[in-house]
Formats: sequence, structure tokens, C-alpha cells
Amino acid sequence: MTAHRKSNGDTTAFVRRHIGPSARDVAAMLETVGAKSVDALMGETLPASIRQAAPLDLGKPLSETEAIAHMAELARQNQVFTSLIGQGYSGTILPAVIQRNILENPAWYTAYTPYQPEISQGRLEALFNFQTMICDLTGLDVANASLLDEATAAAEAMALAERHSQVKAQAFFVDKDVHPQTLAVMRTRAEPLGWTLVVGDPLTDLDKTDVLGALLQYPGSSGAVRDLRPAIAALKARGALAIVAADLLALTVLASPGELGADIAIGSAQRFGVPMGYGGPHAAYMAVRDALKRSLPGRIVGLSVDSRGAPAYRLALQTREQHIRREKATSNICTAQVLLAVIAAMYATYHGPEGLAQIARTVHRRTAVLAAGLRKLGFAPQSETFFDTISVDAGAKRAEIVARAAAEKINLGVGEASLRIAFDETTTPATVEAVWRAFGGQLSYAEIDATTREALPEALKRTTAYLTHPVFHAHRSETEMLRYMRKLSDRDLALDRAMIPLGSCTMKLNATTEMMPLTWPEFGSLHPFAPREQAAGYHALFARLEKWLCDITGYDATSLQPNSGAQGEYAGLLAIRGYHAARGESHRKICLIPSSAHGTNPASAAMVGMDVVVVSCEKNGDVDVNDLRAKAEKHSNDLAAVMITYPSTHGVFEEHIREICDIVHGHGGQVYLDGANLNAQVGLSRPGDYGADVSHLNLHKTFCIPHGGGGPGMGPIGVKAHLAPFLPGHPATNGDARVGPVSAAPFGSASILTISYIYILMMGGEGLKRATEIAILNANYVAARLDPHFPVLYKNGKGRVAHECIVDPRPLKTTSGVTVDDIAKRLIDYGFHAPTMSFPVPGTLMIEPTESESKAELDRFCDAMIAIRKEIAEVEAGRFKIEASPLRHAPHTVHDVADDDWKRAYARSEGCFPDGVSRTDKYWCPVGRVDNVYGDRNLVCSCPPVSDYAEAAE
Amino acid sequence: MTAHRKSNGDTTAFVRRHIGPSARDVAAMLETVGAKSVDALMGETLPASIRQAAPLDLGKPLSETEAIAHMAELARQNQVFTSLIGQGYSGTILPAVIQRNILENPAWYTAYTPYQPEISQGRLEALFNFQTMICDLTGLDVANASLLDEATAAAEAMALAERHSQVKAQAFFVDKDVHPQTLAVMRTRAEPLGWTLVVGDPLTDLDKTDVLGALLQYPGSSGAVRDLRPAIAALKARGALAIVAADLLALTVLASPGELGADIAIGSAQRFGVPMGYGGPHAAYMAVRDALKRSLPGRIVGLSVDSRGAPAYRLALQTREQHIRREKATSNICTAQVLLAVIAAMYATYHGPEGLAQIARTVHRRTAVLAAGLRKLGFAPQSETFFDTISVDAGAKRAEIVARAAAEKINLGVGEASLRIAFDETTTPATVEAVWRAFGGQLSYAEIDATTREALPEALKRTTAYLTHPVFHAHRSETEMLRYMRKLSDRDLALDRAMIPLGSCTMKLNATTEMMPLTWPEFGSLHPFAPREQAAGYHALFARLEKWLCDITGYDATSLQPNSGAQGEYAGLLAIRGYHAARGESHRKICLIPSSAHGTNPASAAMVGMDVVVVSCEKNGDVDVNDLRAKAEKHSNDLAAVMITYPSTHGVFEEHIREICDIVHGHGGQVYLDGANLNAQVGLSRPGDYGADVSHLNLHKTFCIPHGGGGPGMGPIGVKAHLAPFLPGHPATNGDARVGPVSAAPFGSASILTISYIYILMMGGEGLKRATEIAILNANYVAARLDPHFPVLYKNGKGRVAHECIVDPRPLKTTSGVTVDDIAKRLIDYGFHAPTMSFPVPGTLMIEPTESESKAELDRFCDAMIAIRKEIAEVEAGRFKIEASPLRHAPHTVHDVADDDWKRAYARSEGCFPDGVSRTDKYWCPVGRVDNVYGDRNLVCSCPPVSDYAEAAE
Repeated sequence: MTAHRKSNGDTTAFVRRHIGPSARDVAAMLETVGAKSVDALMGETLPASIRQAAPLDLGKPLSETEAIAHMAELARQNQVFTSLIGQGYSGTILPAVIQRNILENPAWYTAYTPYQPEISQGRLEALFNFQTMICDLTGLDVANASLLDEATAAAEAMALAERHSQVKAQAFFVDKDVHPQTLAVMRTRAEPLGWTLVVGDPLTDLDKTDVLGALLQYPGSSGAVRDLRPAIAALKARGALAIVAADLLALTVLASPGELGADIAIGSAQRFGVPMGYGGPHAAYMAVRDALKRSLPGRIVGLSVDSRGAPAYRLALQTREQHIRREKATSNICTAQVLLAVIAAMYATYHGPEGLAQIARTVHRRTAVLAAGLRKLGFAPQSETFFDTISVDAGAKRAEIVARAAAEKINLGVGEASLRIAFDETTTPATVEAVWRAFGGQLSYAEIDATTREALPEALKRTTAYLTHPVFHAHRSETEMLRYMRKLSDRDLALDRAMIPLGSCTMKLNATTEMMPLTWPEFGSLHPFAPREQAAGYHALFARLEKWLCDITGYDATSLQPNSGAQGEYAGLLAIRGYHAARGESHRKICLIPSSAHGTNPASAAMVGMDVVVVSCEKNGDVDVNDLRAKAEKHSNDLAAVMITYPSTHGVFEEHIREICDIVHGHGGQVYLDGANLNAQVGLSRPGDYGADVSHLNLHKTFCIPHGGGGPGMGPIGVKAHLAPFLPGHPATNGDARVGPVSAAPFGSASILTISYIYILMMGGEGLKRATEIAILNANYVAARLDPHFPVLYKNGKGRVAHECIVDPRPLKTTSGVTVDDIAKRLIDYGFHAPTMSFPVPGTLMIEPTESESKAELDRFCDAMIAIRKEIAEVEAGRFKIEASPLRHAPHTVHDVADDDWKRAYARSEGCFPDGVSRTDKYWCPVGRVDNVYGDRNLVCSCPPVSDYAEAAE
Repeated sequence: MTAHRKSNGDTTAFVRRHIGPSARDVAAMLETVGAKSVDALMGETLPASIRQAAPLDLGKPLSETEAIAHMAELARQNQVFTSLIGQGYSGTILPAVIQRNILENPAWYTAYTPYQPEISQGRLEALFNFQTMICDLTGLDVANASLLDEATAAAEAMALAERHSQVKAQAFFVDKDVHPQTLAVMRTRAEPLGWTLVVGDPLTDLDKTDVLGALLQYPGSSGAVRDLRPAIAALKARGALAIVAADLLALTVLASPGELGADIAIGSAQRFGVPMGYGGPHAAYMAVRDALKRSLPGRIVGLSVDSRGAPAYRLALQTREQHIRREKATSNICTAQVLLAVIAAMYATYHGPEGLAQIARTVHRRTAVLAAGLRKLGFAPQSETFFDTISVDAGAKRAEIVARAAAEKINLGVGEASLRIAFDETTTPATVEAVWRAFGGQLSYAEIDATTREALPEALKRTTAYLTHPVFHAHRSETEMLRYMRKLSDRDLALDRAMIPLGSCTMKLNATTEMMPLTWPEFGSLHPFAPREQAAGYHALFARLEKWLCDITGYDATSLQPNSGAQGEYAGLLAIRGYHAARGESHRKICLIPSSAHGTNPASAAMVGMDVVVVSCEKNGDVDVNDLRAKAEKHSNDLAAVMITYPSTHGVFEEHIREICDIVHGHGGQVYLDGANLNAQVGLSRPGDYGADVSHLNLHKTFCIPHGGGGPGMGPIGVKAHLAPFLPGHPATNGDARVGPVSAAPFGSASILTISYIYILMMGGEGLKRATEIAILNANYVAARLDPHFPVLYKNGKGRVAHECIVDPRPLKTTSGVTVDDIAKRLIDYGFHAPTMSFPVPGTLMIEPTESESKAELDRFCDAMIAIRKEIAEVEAGRFKIEASPLRHAPHTVHDVADDDWKRAYARSEGCFPDGVSRTDKYWCPVGRVDNVYGDRNLVCSCPPVSDYAEAAE
């Protein structure tokens, strides 16, 4: 995409498009909230002591057209070579119909995490298909709905094994043929927890140490396909767990990990249609034997029933992990890679089992021919059996071969002692011949092909069926595929239809222009370990984005590596830990966390070996400074850090933030400031200025990366200078860094950094500040309109909320029996996604409108809430009991409205079209209220019998 | 978009994606139709005498990935200069949110023409907005929903004027400052009808001739803004009609044509966000005074009421023009440019009146500064008053200036004696300075800007309001804009949700890959009159496409110019007319047309001055060869042509086609073979082989250009060698051709030719043939399944239909009272668009499944039809009268299902979810059955009062 369009220089245009309210709306809203001006409102909302002195200086903002031209220029600085590097990243073909209708379709990419299952049946079905696909291919019983990347999935699997192993040793075996980045991430993870990694050859070295489990790669990173059955059997014989990192495409032709005896399988689904994107985002997977399912980290989609007993998907087992265990958690996994998992599942739906196997056979054929040719040229592959990758010892000719390949625009995998060539579905015979030329030979593909035999070991050939479910067979034509994707998206409610007023999740506009470069091949087709000079455009972008994020936060250095908010927390705490250790204070392990914190905070602290001490909150929601001071004093010698969210999870700018930072610093601790609520600060205040040492920034909240139905996210961290030496390293860039990598790729999900970059590019400093101001105005407007009906729980001393507010319907439970669930589900009938439920305060709703919602939409939402309050009043007044009310029967579906035998205490139209909801453009959720308890008791996470499934579809 | 993805060489993949049925399906379907094999079925369907001897030789088909890479290579051969050529084509910025969510969204581009208003309310509202915009900007009363291009709109306006003028003279005045291509197309149109064009200066030459009307350009093609009021007044004083060709952007700051006194305004809406695309497609407009509204050609969206009396949009006055007048028609307009009109309307919705005016003022400012600078450099503009374009006399320096501009990558407009510089919203100060440099001066924009005054004539400044309707004010944020487009698209049923079984319209897959290059700037940003060497990629594509189309049809030459099927007919008949004239046989004016012909056939014949003689059909639907022979003999001396559709509009391959061709040739006539049904022939038979001399090819039917909700189309023509000299010329390419242009641009809607090109590229000869075979199989399958329930009206001697079939419910009207309308509307309740109604046989339904529908979807459709037949049987059996049946109440809406007071003779669920229709994924049309009579009696085609409109939205 080389864009030639030019603008007429109206550089303010985008800000107007991003921000919902017009100037006239702003004036009206100020009147409602009783503020003289936006400036005055800010003065009443933020403590004067933390206000930013100088305006942001981010350069002149570009118009949308200029921004696209700028991105095209960056794209030209990237060079798209044919990368045969492998190491877990493969070239792949994203079918155009999936690209356009999922990756480029706001109905999919603007959706939120499917916590409200009734309005998420479409993406839940797609994720269910993903799980089914993973179970089928791995031969295991239960899969989750994706993890962040293969390396973190391996670390998660190790942690799972540690809890379930019958071996009490704190040592874990890692195959020497795993991908180097996987090993590096596992090292990072193991070290703070005191676990030892033993690296070796599973076929020979397993007996030498007492290990709690082992990770084996299949096929190996070198390409070797080994029979792992003896190794697995040996592990299991002594009660250790066997984890296999497996390539999904290989599993279409090789015996599955389950058949080999593995307890857990992990890996990446990237090569199922997801562009490499210089590192991500991609969906990783994890599948386990049934016995382990309740410990499976990450989200799992399960099948339950709705209020009519009809099948309905939902997120299962949500009460696991950090939700209940908090400081005992061994995983802080929160984000998934939903959009990418959906794409991978759709790729399998599009190709079906026969198509996938055909692709695998073709890739293998090309590899076998390559090997045969190389043998002729004197370079025998190091393994006789392989799937799509071979390694050869190139001896002294190594550098020459690599250079010749580069001249052919081909990147080879350069190992320590060998060269690696990894093929994929984009590999052509011409590529094979080019590789031969790089190795010094002029051979004909057709000739070698004629005499080559395959190199899959007979004993490991797959004999079991997979993807037998009809969904993988009924969508082979593009027309059927298109209609399937449309049908699923129509079942869901995303930002392209209505406001999603989720507290703490900042569901703002994901502008089309921000999304466009993402699918340009110059950003999509780069291998994360391609030579740096091929990614000059990316690195220019990284450098500028890092600088901008420092300017915005007041920090001195940034790491773009963490590929989720929780990963950012983890990386930030690793930096703090490294800092203390470097000063000889490794004993500092106490982490203070307010009781109102995000659930990931204590989980992250636990992951770096810290001990969590909870600080209480005051009645008004603020951190109890006295309690904090007391606990900091008590633990003064061992104080590592405080983790605090600002503005607080209660939606208020607390006055004491500077004081809190000072107290913690006074006792030798560091301040981790959770950046979840940065959307209330950009341009107005900077954490680095008022005392914080490190923060993560949720680029998928504040900086416009769409939520994608529950991922991808990005969680870069900013740090003050003293922590900069402890930012995560990576073997591909700086393997000797003091802290190891936290993600598989050195720059995390690099390709989606383009989104945040373009957003900042088009907003400029003034625009970003304006966005923050309007986000705060919008929240105060909603608070002012709702307060008379549902009291706003927390405000600051001047009666202001920050960028979100918590409304409290708990007293109404006493007077009417209404639950927060009833209100949330009833909002669906009004065409809205529910606000955040019961976080941080059980029984309440947290609402964050963001700056992108117009006054008209805010009013529509407030009107709906007020109408619901009136319905509650009718229960209070005795018109009907709560059980018989439209509130409890919500959401109302087509099944309800069409009931031939309507016998409710309220009229059909009252139930389905309350308070003037449009009949013409009504959103109908496909299922009634979903039964959570049933779903967890009867856990079904893949492949129900076809008959059940057919019913579920209806 | 420079695509780097590569495929593994599986070149058969796309054919499998394009064709619906799998191999297993095909076997099952063959059994149902009772054919041994596909080959056998073809043998029973097509006369052996016309079967194609050699297979198509179109080269090796490419995979989707290879095709994209190939297109990227062609794109690189195009050079995107900044074109300041003007002449009706301007650079423009298509807002990204509109590009992604309309132009690249199958919900919009795969929709059919809104003949079924109930499932088309979304695009009807968008077109209504377009009409409102045109009425507002032109100051006239009624606008249509777009025409093909400005030049044909001018010709249509001339024809309209001819019918309504009180002046009986056959002379028409054309402003010498109209765009040259407009004049050329008008000449083509006028000549066969015996009208004289008088070209002159309207301010001085109007009095000299007695003219029936005049076309004036405003601003002129040279850029001059003249006060046309005296000229218009003079015209009207003598009863002649005044037509003004006006630039829409200029009208935001200049007095409207209506205010100037014009009767008709025409022009292009291209610069409202639609890429130039080397000529199109773009929407032209026409607006008229109220008195002329019932003669307005093209489609008009009107507001009517539905079965509940609620407002509902529909196509108004459909019984005009070729539908009722046929051989008396003066217009064959059939296609509109719906998708482009929608984009233009959305552009106005996005910018609003203040945004459009701001753009206009900025463009004018740049132009005024340019003029001031050029004056300094010694090049005074030829007009003191202008909007965005100036012309200067460059004298001897002309060539040098043009060359220097080219070195700056700028194209200037090169007139006969002057240079023209036309600006647009993409023009930057840097462009202005570059133009100055081309004229030999180094000037600073800022400096000149400071001392420049505007050059709009005070007396012509706009003082009246426009776009006052709320729709043009409520969508200023991208979020609101996105939701509005989503809301409208959800109201409509397009190919992305269900089969559209329209006979004769070939609603096949519009594959995503085919659609992708269209929006690349290398194809979108080229001015149609840019130097040919800048369009090398386009010309390579044209050459190859022409050759392919010749191979497919058996013709010797092709013209890609006609930008609709009807334009193709017209161009083909012009070629025949030219041929006869060149042989001294201008008296040959009789055109034989079977009674079953498309309505456009006689209209096109009338437009070239031919006299239509209708040939009757036999009972079995075939052309009555005896009648044809008799009439050919009778008119032997004057026989010009026969126009015949093959396979016939009755959906049958008639046995006598060769004989018919021979008879006509025997009497000196030419054979025009209507290509509407070419989808039944590609790869199996070639019109050029069995006797036809010329055909048009509906690329939007057979060759995958999407219908776009009713346009764009493309209608290239193929001819035998003897007609090749009479293909349409164009002043920009071959102004001395024997036949003038039929479209404004030399290659019609060039940019969408990419779609058909890629389709052929990916299918190859074998694939195209397979598609035809499966299209025929699918039709015979539907015929076989439906025949027992609704008799198939026409079959060939072996009981076979071609690619479509007509089913006949007429006898059921007697037994039950059911109408074809009832069946069509009831199909909506089953989730289907209706088949073609009452064409070519009143009271019947014509069904064309195309090759892209899977057996599953065909079965769903057949099951629905059979279920409807059962419902009719219930009426026959007396369960209820037809008036009380679900058939008559169809379609059922949310308003129906939600009725608190249901009192129908059938159950609510029976009405809304007949025969197992999915409740979960039900498509709900937003209005009940629309009242056509009311709509035509109470014609409302724009801007109803806001209160009405608000109701309409609900």
C-alpha cells in the first residue's frame, strides 16, 4: 500500500472525528455537570499538585491522509524478504475473505471480551471452534481459548506442571531443541520462583536429573522429528508431567501429543493464517488432559444453557486463578489473543481437515526435495526425519551461504553451529531452487522432486481423524465462508453498533485509518528474527513511539516487549526486583497492594516471588494512607514496592498520590503505578513526575488498539532511569540483558504498535489532552445524570469523578430484590453492553464512557439506565415481584417475543422494546440469560455431539 | 499495496472457492436431475450445433495470492501523478471509515438493485440522502438516484428537453465551455435522432439560432464562473429549456442552478469521495423542476408507506420509460451508480454543510493564490472569476511548462490554446508552488496568500442553506458515522447473508481477492485523461482483458467503453448503424426484437433511430422462427438488425439460433446478441461462432463485478471484424473514430475492470467452463426440485433449462388468490430475496442460482418454495382466505411479531418463523409490504419534514 493521497493540510480534522461531543455538546454538558469550563472542570477533578507543567510536545499532528502517507513511507523502509528462519514463525496465507471480513471488520475487532455471553455468542462460537481444533490436533481433552505466545504458554505450562507434579523437586527439564526464545522466557519465569531449568536431550538426558516435568518440542526447533514416546513414558513413570510444544500444521500429518502420551500441549497458531507481523500478535494454545482442566490458565469457552434450556456458550471456570487465588496465583494471564484465535479457527474452517493436510503434505514435499538437493550438494540434513524444517552444518561456507541467500532476498535460520531452513505454505519450487543456489548449486526442482521420498517417520504418521465436526466441512466455498462469518458477527454487539461503557477498559474509537497499515505486507510479513536492517521502518516507529510514551508518562525509558497489560506488570516488577538485587537488597520482597487493586496485581507480584501485603481502603474509596504508612514502616527493611492504580480503580483522582509515593520511597520501596487508567491522565499529569518509578501502558485501552473481542493487547512499560537497566532483554536483540525476556518476540506484538503510533501521530499533544479532558467530562456528565437515580459511589472532595464512575444499585436489592446482573442483562434489551459488573466493588456497576462517545449516545445510555430505575421502582411499588419482572427475564430474545403463549406479568412489547427502543434496528441477542453454574458443573469445551451442536446453532 | 505474499502453487484453489457445490454435491444433484454426468447434462442442454470446438485458452490460472502479486505488478506500471487536469474529474479524499465500511464491505457491495423495497431500506435511505443532497445543492425540486456519468446525463437531459420544450426546432445549444467529452457524447446521441447541436457562447450566441434548449456549464470547463441568468432567462422566454451542468462542490459557495432559473441540472458527484479510477465508476446526477419529474430518467427513490402505514422507501415511478414505452422510449437507462451515489451521500453526511463549504473555500483559496502568483509571473487567468480552475494562455512556453510540470509529477490540463489548472481538496500549498515552478517562478505560497483576494463573483455567491436535514449533522464523529453505516446495512439483505436467486442477474460470488486492488491508489487515483504512459498497467490489463473476452465470445474486437449493459446495446447498435451507413445503406432501420426481449432492447434501438418490429414467440417460449422469417422477408430491404437474447430470456437454449442468424444475414441484417445470459455459455459456446455479429457483456453479471445495490455495471461489446471500425471512439484517444463516444471516459468505468480481469485470471479457461457447467447444473437442480410444486414453464426438447428457470404460480391464483407478489414477499420471511418477478412472463418467477451457491443453500431455497406451496395449499383447502393468510401479510416484521394484540388467523410463530426458519439468526426486514400506488400518487423524493423523517427512521 503505497498511498499517494494528499490532504489539504487540515491537521485538526482527526481530533474532531475521534472525539464524540461537538463544541455545542460540550457546552451543554458543562452546564449539566455545573462546571464553568473544561479547564475549570479539570481543576476540580485533578489535584493541583500533580498537574503537568508543560504541554505535551509530540510534533505537529497529521491528517488521516498525511498519516497514511507517512506510514507508507515507513513501510517502504521495511524490506520483505522470504524468511525461512522458522523458530516458531512461518509465512502463511491469510485468506482474503477472512482478512476483509474479520481482521478488517469492526464488528469483530471492536468487540469486547465476552464476559457478557448473551451478546457474544458469535465470537464464543468461533473460539469454541478454536478449542475444538486444538483438542483435535493435539489429541488432548481440553484446550483454552488462546494464550499470548508460545514462549509464555510454555512458562504457563511449567507453572501448571509444578502444581500438579507428583515429583516434589523444583527442577524442570527443557529439551535443548526448543526454540531459544521459549527457553529464555522460561528462564525468566523460573528464576524468581526458585525453579531450576535443566536443558538437555530428552532422548538421552532425562534420567540424569529428578525433574517435576519436561518440555519437549515436536518437531524440534532444528526440524528433527523424534519419537518422544520413550521420554514421555519415562517422565510419567515417575509422576512427572510431560509437556509437548507442537506445531499445529505438523500435527495434521504426525501423531498427536496426546497419542504420544503428553499431559499438556502448547504452541502457536500463527501459521494458521495470521501474519508474522514482526513478532505478533498471534494466538498461542494450551491443551491438557481432562484431569488438569480446572487448572488450565487463561480463558476457556464452555457450553452451558440459557434461561430456556437452550445451548449457549460462555466463558467457563471464571472463578479460577487470579480471581479467587489472587496472591496465591501462579499465573496473571488475563488477556487472550481472541481476534487471532478467531482467525486461526476460521482458517481451519476454510481449509477443513483435507485442506490442512494438503498444505502440510505440500510443505513437507518441498522440504524433502530441498533436503535431497542439499544432500546432492554435500550438505546432509542433521536429521533424517523432519517435517518442514531442516538444519545442516554449513561449516566454513556459512557466511557465504547466508550472504548469497540474502542476495536472493531470502533469510535463513542461523543457529550456533548450523543453518536452518524452514518452509511454509508460501514456499514455492522457485524458493527451493534459490536456496540451492545459495548453497552453491544449480538444481532443478522438478528433477529432484521426481526421485525424492518423504521424510516423515512411519511410526509417527498420524492415523487418527481430526476436525470431524460439520463446521469444518460446510464452508468450503467463499460464499459459505462469508455468510458464516457474517452470521456469527451479527450475533454480537460491538462498538460498531453501540457504546460499550466498560469501566477500566476504555472502549474508545478504533479509527479505520489507525487499522489500515496493519494489513500491509510491509508490516505483516516480517519475521521477528529477520535482520534488523530489514525492519528499519519498524525500528523508526519503535524509537519514536518510545519517545512519545516517555513524553506522555514522564518516564525515561520504555520497553515495548510486554504483549499484555499483565505482562507489563510482570515486567515492571521484574525491573524492580532486578534493581533491588543489583543493590544487594534481594531480600526486599514485600509488595503493598491496596484492596481495590486489579486482580492481576497480586498475581504478578506472586510471579516474581514477592509477598503481597494488602493495604486497606477508606470508606470514600481512597487508599488508607495511615494503613499504608503503617505497613510500609512495618516492612521497611523488606519493602520492595507498592502497586497502585491511578486514578484509582474507584474512578477518582486521590489527593494523596504524591504522599503515597514519598512514603514508599522513604522506606526503600519502588512505586509501580498501574497504567490501566492512563486515559484520565494523558496531557494532564505524568506518573513519572509525581513519584512513580514504573508503569505499564495498556495500548489497547488508552491508545486505540481495538479489544478484538478479548485480545490482542499490548502492555509496554515506562520506567525512570534507574530502572532502565532492568527492562526485559531478548536473545534476538540483547541476550546479555540483566533481565530476560517476558515475551516470545523482542518487541511483543509489534504489528499492532502501528495502531497506537498512528493515533498519537494524528492527535498530537493538544489533541491527546483534549481527548483526556472530554473523557473526564463525559464521565462527569454520566455521573451527574445518573446520580439521582443510582448514587455515584465515589467522588473526590469537589464532587468530581475521573474518567469513570461507579454507580451503586446495592440498596435497591433490599427494596426490590434486583441484582446487578438484572440491570446488566436488562441493558441488553435497551441495546447496550453492560458496564463492568462488581469490580472493584461487588454489586456495583463501573461506567467509563471515553471521549469517543457523543452526547447523543451518552444520553441514550443514561435514559436507558433511568428507565431501568423506573422499572425497579415498579417492583418496589409491588406491580410484580422481581422474579416476574422484565428485569429478571432480561435479556429478551426473539424466542421470547415470538412466544405464541405469552403469560408474563408485563406486555410483550414492554419486555422487548422498553421505553421507546427502536423496533426497526433492534439488536436481538441470540440466547437468553446464560446459566453459569450449570456450565461449570457440566464442563463442555469442545466438540459436543453433532446433534447437540445443531440445536445450539438454533 | 505491493503484495509480497506468495502461494505454494496450488492454482486450482480459487475455482473451488468460487463454485458452491462440492464434488459430492455435484454427484447428488446429477442424480436428482437424472443426468449421468455433467458432460451428459450439457449435451442435453445445449444444441450440439453450437458447442464450442476448442477449449478456452486463457493461460494458466493463478491462485489468489499469485493474482494479487500480479495485480501489484500491474499497479507498479501505473504512475500516480497529481492531476490538475480537471474536466470533470478531481482528486478527492475518500474517508477511510467510508472506504472500509461501504466500498470494501460486502453488505453494501453485494446487494442487488432495490426492487424489493422491504429488504432494501438501508440503501434506499442512503440514496434518498443522495437525492436530498442533490436537490439542496442544485436548488431544484426532484433528483434521481444517479446516472452513469456527466456526459450521458447531459445527453439524457437533452432528450428530456426535447420532449418538453415548447420550441419545436430540432436544434439544441451547447455551451462551448462544456467539457469536451460531454459535447462528444451529446453529438453521438443527437445525430441518429436528427437533432442539430449548435455550439457557442451562451452569453452572446444564444439569440442566433432557434433552439429547443441549451446546456450550460457552471463553472465552465475552462474554470470561468459566468453569470448565466440572462442566458437562462432568454431561453425560458421563448419556451426553451435551460440545462446547467454544475459542479457540486462549487455549489456549496455559488448560487444554485435553481436560483439561476435552470429547469434541469446535471453533473458528477465524483469529487464527493469517489476515486477517479481512470474514468469511473462515479455517480452522475440529474435534478429537475417539479413539472418535469415524471419524465426524469433513471431510478428515483420515493417515500411511501408500508402495510402498517409507516413510512417506507421504495423506487418510485417504476412504470415509466422503457417499461411502458419500450420502442417509444428516449432513454434506455437501466443501471444506476448506486454504490458510488451511496459513497457521495455518505461523504456529505460525514462532512456536513459546514465541512463541505470549508473544503470549497480552501480549494478556492488555493486557486485564487495560484492565479495571483501566475499573474505575477505574467500569466493572467483568462477569467477574472473562477472557483477551483483557471485557464491561461501560455503561448510559446506551453510545451516547456507542461514538461516542467511533468517533472514535478504534475499533469496540467492541455487545451487547444491554453493550459488549465484545476484544484481539489487534495491540493496543498506545495502543489501550488510546484505549478509556479513549472511556469518558471519561485514564489512563496504564504507570501502570495497574504495579499490575495477571492475570485468568486459577489452576485453569484450562495446565500441559501443546504443539507439542513439532521442526517447531515448527526454523524460528525467517526463512531457515529460508523454506526450509521452499520445500521443501514443491517436493514438490507445482500449476498453476504443469503442467496439472491434473481433470474437474468447472475448474483454470483464477488470474491474478496477480486475486490482488493480496486482501492489501491495506483488504480484509484488516475485521471482518465492523464497521459497514456502513466497508465501502462491499466493498458496492459485492457489489452489482455479484450483478448480474453474475444476468446470467450468468438468475436474479433472489443470496446471496453460502455459503462452499463444498456450502453453496450446502444454502442452495439451504433456499430451496426455505422456499418450499414458505410455501405450506403443508411435506410436499413428495421430492428427485429422478440416479444420476450429485455426492455432495454427496444429502447436502445429507438435511441439509434431504428424502428422496432416485434417478433412473436411460440408457446414453448422460443422465438417463432416462421414469424421472424416472414418479417425479415417483409422488411428485407430495410432490415438493420435482430436483437436476440441467448439463451433466451425464457431460460432455454433454443435449437434454432443458427437458423435465426442465417435468416437475418440472408436479408442483409446484422445479429445483435444480448449477452445478459452469457453465464450459460462461457466455455461451452461462442456467439461469434454461431452467427452473431455483436454482443454486449454484462461484466457485473457473468464476470463478477458486484451489483453494488444497483450499480456500477460495465457493458463492453464484442464485435466481428467487419464491425470493428464502428466501435465507439473518444476525443481523448481517437477523436476521429467513425462513431463517437457513448461514455464520458474512454474506457468506461475502468477501475472495476480489475475485478473481471482478476476473476478470469484466477479461473482460467477450464475453471470458467466448469463454472458455466455448474451454473447450468444448479439451475436444472432447482428446476427438478420445484417442478412438482411450481411447474417450470419452459424447457428444451430434452427437458432441460439453461442457467435459469421460470416457475409458474399463475394457476394458483385461480385456486387460491395467491399472487406472485405474495410468494416473493413470503420468501423474505424465509430469509430470501425474491427471484425476478413477472419478467419476462407476467405472474411468474425467474430463478437463477448461479454456480456459486452450494447445494445446501439451493436446498434451503427449494425447501422454502415448497413450504410456501404448502401454505398456498392451505388456502386452497379453506383454512383461511388469502387475505387472512401469512402469504398476504408477508413480509412479517418485528412490528408484527411483537404485536401485543395478535389476532391473525395463524399463529405468530407460523407467520414469522415458517417451516423451521432460524429464530436466532433471523433477518428482519424493517418495514412491512410497501404500498406502491400510494408512493407514486404522493411522490416524495427528498427532504420530508424532519418529523416525518424521524418516524420513518423508526
